[in-house]
Order: sequence, then structure tokens, then C-alpha cells
Amino acid sequence: MAEALRIGIAGLGTVGASVARVLSEKAAELTRQCGREIVVAAVSARDRSRNRGVDLGGAKWFDDPAELARNADIDVFVELIGGDDGPAHNCVKAALEAGRHVVTANKALLARHGIALAEIAERKGVLLNYEAAVAGGIPVIKTMREAMAGNSVSRVFGILNGTCNYILTRMEAEGLSFDACLKDAQRLGYAEADPTFDIEGHDTAHKLAILTSLAFGCKISADDIYMEGISNISQADVRAAGELGYRIKLLGVAQATESGIEQRVHPTMVPTASVIAQVHGVTNAVAIETDILGELLLSGPGAGGNATASAVVGDIADIAKSRPGFQHGPVFGRPARELKPYKRARMRSHEGGYFIRLTVHDRVGVFAAVAKRMADNEISLESIVQHAAEPEAGTAKTVILVTHETTEAAVRKAVDGITKDGHLTDKPQVIRIERAD
Amino acid sequence: MAEALRIGIAGLGTVGASVARVLSEKAAELTRQCGREIVVAAVSARDRSRNRGVDLGGAKWFDDPAELARNADIDVFVELIGGDDGPAHNCVKAALEAGRHVVTANKALLARHGIALAEIAERKGVLLNYEAAVAGGIPVIKTMREAMAGNSVSRVFGILNGTCNYILTRMEAEGLSFDACLKDAQRLGYAEADPTFDIEGHDTAHKLAILTSLAFGCKISADDIYMEGISNISQADVRAAGELGYRIKLLGVAQATESGIEQRVHPTMVPTASVIAQVHGVTNAVAIETDILGELLLSGPGAGGNATASAVVGDIADIAKSRPGFQHGPVFGRPARELKPYKRARMRSHEGGYFIRLTVHDRVGVFAAVAKRMADNEISLESIVQHAAEPEAGTAKTVILVTHETTEAAVRKAVDGITKDGHLTDKPQVIRIERAD
Repeated sequence: MAEALRIGIAGLGTVGASVARVLSEKAAELTRQCGREIVVAAVSARDRSRNRGVDLGGAKWFDDPAELARNADIDVFVELIGGDDGPAHNCVKAALEAGRHVVTANKALLARHGIALAEIAERKGVLLNYEAAVAGGIPVIKTMREAMAGNSVSRVFGILNGTCNYILTRMEAEGLSFDACLKDAQRLGYAEADPTFDIEGHDTAHKLAILTSLAFGCKISADDIYMEGISNISQADVRAAGELGYRIKLLGVAQATESGIEQRVHPTMVPTASVIAQVHGVTNAVAIETDILGELLLSGPGAGGNATASAVVGDIADIAKSRPGFQHGPVFGRPARELKPYKRARMRSHEGGYFIRLTVHDRVGVFAAVAKRMADNEISLESIVQHAAEPEAGTAKTVILVTHETTEAAVRKAVDGITKDGHLTDKPQVIRIERAD
Repeated sequence: MAEALRIGIAGLGTVGASVARVLSEKAAELTRQCGREIVVAAVSARDRSRNRGVDLGGAKWFDDPAELARNADIDVFVELIGGDDGPAHNCVKAALEAGRHVVTANKALLARHGIALAEIAERKGVLLNYEAAVAGGIPVIKTMREAMAGNSVSRVFGILNGTCNYILTRMEAEGLSFDACLKDAQRLGYAEADPTFDIEGHDTAHKLAILTSLAFGCKISADDIYMEGISNISQADVRAAGELGYRIKLLGVAQATESGIEQRVHPTMVPTASVIAQVHGVTNAVAIETDILGELLLSGPGAGGNATASAVVGDIADIAKSRPGFQHGPVFGRPARELKPYKRARMRSHEGGYFIRLTVHDRVGVFAAVAKRMADNEISLESIVQHAAEPEAGTAKTVILVTHETTEAAVRKAVDGITKDGHLTDKPQVIRIERAD
């Protein structure tokens, strides 16, 4: 049998402790699967004394994770510190430069420094594995990087944030407000005390940026993402969506268009009968559309210590099955130095259907004015629903429009026009509709 | 750059021609992804003169696939001949013995000879890749063999046959009979002229047998599968399922139980709101439940030239990324010689909920007699629905029972009892209910 693979784990929070536990509890099985032992040779964390439910007595302790990263007695550096800069970045860079394989679950780090790190890994002939960085336990990186070789991707989209999906699921199932669901999510540990990063779409954007690179062979560009969160989704939207045969999900979508690659994160209406609409609670899902394979959908747990640990252990096992001298496939599917620059599609050119909810004064001529603004911008309507005035709205009425395929620019122009006409009593709501099977 | 990887393709039907076309059209992209060229160096098929829409002029022609398999000028033998014995088996064996990597889409071959072939591959240090053999383009083999390292699987189940799912989907959507849907499937090329292999569950069973080995680390045992097809599913079943919140799917299910491993293929009621219930038409899906990751679901195209070719090309690319001297992970996840013998669970001990549809004489006391037989066998009922007599049934009535968790043995005993009581005007229908999220 080959020599044991020596692992160094930096960061022993929920995920790090789970990884150590799985490697210990499943040691015999992993040895059988990989043809060699996997040994946790060294660890680093902030608090040495904390009980993590796993015996790490055999591992060398490092107070400084950077020292662990450069240590010659490990083969693989497992980065579970988190954060896009500072220690995590320094450690991963140092480990790669020192010729160590790296496994990381750090989406923020990859979204910002992924390509530069991939260049180091490829130059040094080591692996940089990051399955856990996108959609937790779902093997989407492996699928896109390996299984889809030769496929040209046209669109990749998914539910990539469990917090948002949990909130939207409960809003629909229980008729609760966004605020009430957020508070519950915080109480249950599904949302942070400061939930901005999740609910405004930043977390989804980081993950989407990584998928975009894998899908389209371009550099990662996390700052070029159109982003809208879910905090302005109301019960009125959720109910109207349901009546029209849709469900609201926060999606990350990357799509090839004639003018470049669209990257967008926003609340989206998906058909209630589609597979992705059945993805409830903290579960994640990713759909990938290609020219050869067709459409593939993967769904599963997107977060949590164990699910994330499963992906990290899978990445470690892949390294254990390889041997020194083996030349690996590129980190982002194509060699990092050959990745094209990211070319951003203009959001105003986005094409699709739109859901528009307007709260209007209950007076003569409003309907006609709304319809005229739509027609003037050549927007064809699939349906118009006028809702009875809601008690709290006084004399206001709700008008819901669903458009056929049109452009973002046309919709914005029409809605701006209606706003200027002075018919609205509240700000208009616009939600994009996404085609999904 | 490393030397080109030389491929020999045996079998140039729909899939073989697609593979050759993809390798040719995506040559530049594949070279970039794999770090070396992939060249179709040799081919073998029955008819040399047929136009396959791809230029194979550069490839050496072999009339005898076995000669191709042993040819020293290829690195990878791609078997797309089909059939569990005869040429396919001889060729794959010869190729492995000659130290060639093998890629195959042949589920029947693997279901029968997979373990013996894996032993040869592992002894020779070559890869035997077979992603296309189960669920077409869905990367379920890669997921179970690589991504789930260290996970213990408790259940794997899926829609593994597109023909059956197409028929069941149309029966529900259009209210058509099984026979009418089958005829249409045959006309559209989704079903063979002799559809037995698909509709009676044999095809699903072959695929399930392979998944069982990957899931539970046991030998493949395709003959130890409880099997029921969909030919006796009626509109009455489909309608009743819908009314009760279920949808009927032909599932292959492998599950760890106390008495061994259950392998079963049968029509199954799954909750209408579950993800797997939204898998329509010829699409396939596989759900895997494990201790660490939790539940993962993959859905996508299960057949068709291009989707199958995508999986074959992915397998070839994995080999292209490896280098001579590299020692690979085992073919079925664990070393073939260490796989446990398959221990079959007795079907009579299967536990779950049941749907029972009885057509009974419309007379006093029938209901009481049915209820008593259930109670005598300690079967607790979730619901009983008595349907109005159907016009064609004369004086007969339909009674539908949905049971709570019980055993197969108890249900069979109860139904046998009811049959003996003489209350039935037609044979009873029993459909198992499968838990699914």
C-alpha cells in the first residue's frame, strides 16, 4: 500500500471538526476506497482547549495557520478558516507555493483570488479542490469540471443560498412576512445576526461567480454581477406568484448572450411545476444546460457541518487516489492562464418574461395609462390581473402584469413612465421570470 | 504537452457516432481541458460504408472488434457494441487483459460480469469507466464512486428507465391507457418493437444492480432483484394516486435493512410535491441518502445519443487527464476482491406504506370484511376511499385503501384473505408507497 496521505487542517469550527470526525470514524472505509491511509497530521485553530468531539491528540498543533501551511510534514492543506483576505488567503497561497495540495470550502476567497491561486497550483502541479465552496454537499464542481468535459454550457442557474430559500419557503407555506421569517431563521441558526450578506445576494453571487468561470471558461468576476436581494419581497408578491402558477426563488443565473455573459442574482419566478420549484427550505439546487448533455439538475444540502464536510472529504479522497508525479486537470476546467477575460452582458439587454406588481390609485383611466405605457414599449402581455383593493391600501388597487419575453430596458422604461404618470401609490415591484422545466 | 491519447471505438450506432462527432467537434476544447489531444485512432462496426455524419477517415478500420481491443496502437477501448455476452464481453476482457483502459456504456455487461472485469482492471492498473451505463448523461457513477467517499449509503432510488417514465407521464397528463401510450412511445422511438425489457423492469434492474454495488460495497447481483413492471397500471390507479396526493413512477430502489439489502423495481407512489415526482417524460433521476451528506438528487436525460455520448466523453477525458503509472481508484468504489457478497433482504419483510385498490361486489358487508382482514393482519389505515361504481363495472365498486407503514407479508396475507372471501370482481392492485422529499 502507498504511504499515508498527511492532512493539515486549519480552522476547527463546525466544518473543520466534522471533517476531522469523518476522517477518524470512516478511516478504514476511506483507506479501502483510496488505497492508502488518510491521516490528520497537523491542525491549527484559535482555541486549543475546546472540546470538538474528536480526538486530535495525534495531530501536531500550530497556533499559526501559516506555519502549518508551509510545514513539510503535510501533503494536503485544508483551509477552513474563511474570509476572502487575511489568514485564509495567505495560508492557501503559502501552501500552494510550498507544493502542497489545497482543499478549501472558501467561496469568498475563490471569488476574489481563485484564478491567481489556480495559476500557482497549476504551475506547481498540485491540486486545488473546492467542492464545498459552492452548494455545500452537492458535487457541482466535480460535475462541471470533470463529468461535463467537452460540453458547451449555455446557462447555469441555481438556488445557492439556504437562508433565502428557507425564508421564501416559509413565507409561501405559512403566509408570514419576510421579517417574521428572517427572525425565525436567525433563532434557528439558519441566518446570521447580520443577515445582509445572505439576504441581499452576496453569498449567492460569490458562488455564482465560481460557476460562471467553470461554465464559460472565463476569469472569475464577482464584482460584475447584477444583484437584488429578497428583502423587498412581500406576501402580495408570494400570493400573486402562486395564483399565476409561479413560485419565487432567489436564483443565481449565468447565461451566455450575444453581448457577453449575464451574471445575475435576483428573486425569480419559476413555474410551480418545475423541479427547481420543489426545492424547499435550506436545500440548494443547481441546473446546468449544455449542448451535448442537455439539462442536468442537482439538488441537496447546501450548508451544514456534515454536508460541507462530505464535500471536503471527497476532495481529500480524490487527492489520496492520485499519486506523486500525476498531472492533474486544471483547477477551473481550463488552464488558468488561458481563461478568457470575463465579458459582461449589459443587464438592460436581458431578455425574458417579467412579473410587474403595481399599486395604483383607484381612479378612471389608470388601467388604460398602464396598458399604453406597455404598448409604447412594445411589451406584449401574457396576463393582467386586477386585485380587489386591500384593506390597508385605502383607495389603492393592485394591478399585476405578466409579460411575454421582452427586454429589461423596455420594462424599466415602461415602469419609469408609469411612475412619472403619477398613478402609483407605492413603488412598483418587478420580478423576472425564469424558464425552468 | 503529453502524447495524444489514442481511442479505439467499437460500435458506431447512435451513441458511437455521437462520441466520434463530439471528439472531433470539441477537439480543441478537450485538448485544453485534458492537457493532451484525444485522437480516434481506430474504429470497428458492422457496416463500413454507412454515413455517420463524421469523418472517420483518419481512423484504422477493424472488421473484428476483438482485434481492435487487443491492438497495441490504442490506449483506450470504448465498447459501444452492447449485449451482456458475446463480442462485447470478449472485447472488454481482451482489452483489459492487454492493459488498455476501457470505457463502456453497457449496463447489461456490467450487471453480469462487472466484478470479474473490475478485478482484471485493478490487477492490470487500468481504468474501467462506465458513467453512461446508468442514467445516461447523469453523473451518478462519478458522484457515488468519487464525490461520496466516506459516506455510508442507506438508500438509493431512482427513475432509471425513460420509456416507462414517458408512458406514466402521458397516462397521467392525458388520461390515456397504458396500451395507447406504449404505442405512441414505439412510434416516437422511445420504446422498442418488443418493449418487454423496458416495461417489465429488466433495464431498470440492470442499472439498479450497479448502483447497489457502489452504494453498499457488495458484489453485483442482478438476479436477486424483486421486479414488477408497469403493464398492469391502469387509469384507475393513476387517477386514484392523483386524488390521494401521489404520482406513480417506476422506481428502482436499493435499501439497507436489518436482514440484508433490498433491491426492488416496481411501480411506486411518490408524493406529488416531492422533487422526484416532477421528473417527467424520458428524464431520469437518482436520489441517494447517506449518513454524512444527507440526501442528494440528480436528474437529467437518461438516454439518447448525445446525452450518453456526453458521459462517455467525460469518462475518456478522465483517462486523458491521468498519466501512465498513475494508480486509479477502484472500479466499484472499493477493491473488487474485497467487495462483500450480496446479502438479499427478504421482500416479505419490506416495510412501508401501501396503496391497495380493490374492485368489489356492491353488496352489504363487503366493507366490513375488508376492514376486518386489515385489522387481523395489524395493518393500520391512513385512508379508505370508496368510489362510485364505474359505468363499465356493472354492480362493482372500487375501494381504495392507503395503509400506514406495515410489512409486505402482512399486506399479502390480508389481500389473499380478501380474495378468498369472494368479494372481489377483479384482481386486486397493490402499489408500494415510497417516502420521498
